[in-house]
Amino acid sequence: MLRHVVLLEMKDGTPDSAVAGIVTELESLIGRLPAEVRLVDYTCGRDAGLVPSGNAHVAIVADFEDEDGYRAYQSNAEHQAIIKNFIIPHLRKRMASQFIIKA
Amino acid sequence: MLRHVVLLEMKDGTPDSAVAGIVTELESLIGRLPAEVRLVDYTCGRDAGLVPSGNAHVAIVADFEDEDGYRAYQSNAEHQAIIKNFIIPHLRKRMASQFIIKA
Repeated sequence: MLRHVVLLEMKDGTPDSAVAGIVTELESLIGRLPAEVRLVDYTCGRDAGLVPSGNAHVAIVADFEDEDGYRAYQSNAEHQAIIKNFIIPHLRKRMASQFIIKA
Repeated sequence: MLRHVVLLEMKDGTPDSAVAGIVTELESLIGRLPAEVRLVDYTCGRDAGLVPSGNAHVAIVADFEDEDGYRAYQSNAEHQAIIKNFIIPHLRKRMASQFIIKA
């Protein structure tokens, strides 16, 4: 199984509603993804505010059956539209990684 | 449940063995953590190399029963020693976030 991890740090002054909107859009997308994405689990959320400063604002952890599923997710047109319209306009820094986990 | 996500980007020239060592040390720590950490799940791994460039080198996703468990993990002396001795010397950038997920 492949675990895809993304952390998003938004620009200073990004409205609270814009951060919340990213999570809403991504969670809503999940139910519409085609079978080829082979999604096993998807969690996405806003930072809980436990650390005084320096944390990312949004985290995503998505588990796919295999690499092909991950690639289908990344290239999905609706996913790309969310990135373009909801994330990029407010994005300061993105970090990501994919790693193998036991099924 | 609280999901703790960390991405580590290492300095240019960090030896392969040093990156592998971070994963080995963290995975080995898990079995020795005290009950107060209330760990539910822990995955840690090296980037799978699916993206040509820009990815973090190491990803960690740790699930705790609650915020107190997460705080016990963060302040754990052995965990702190791994951060100091194995991660910090090679670290270029760290991003992290904690968010609530359904149990």
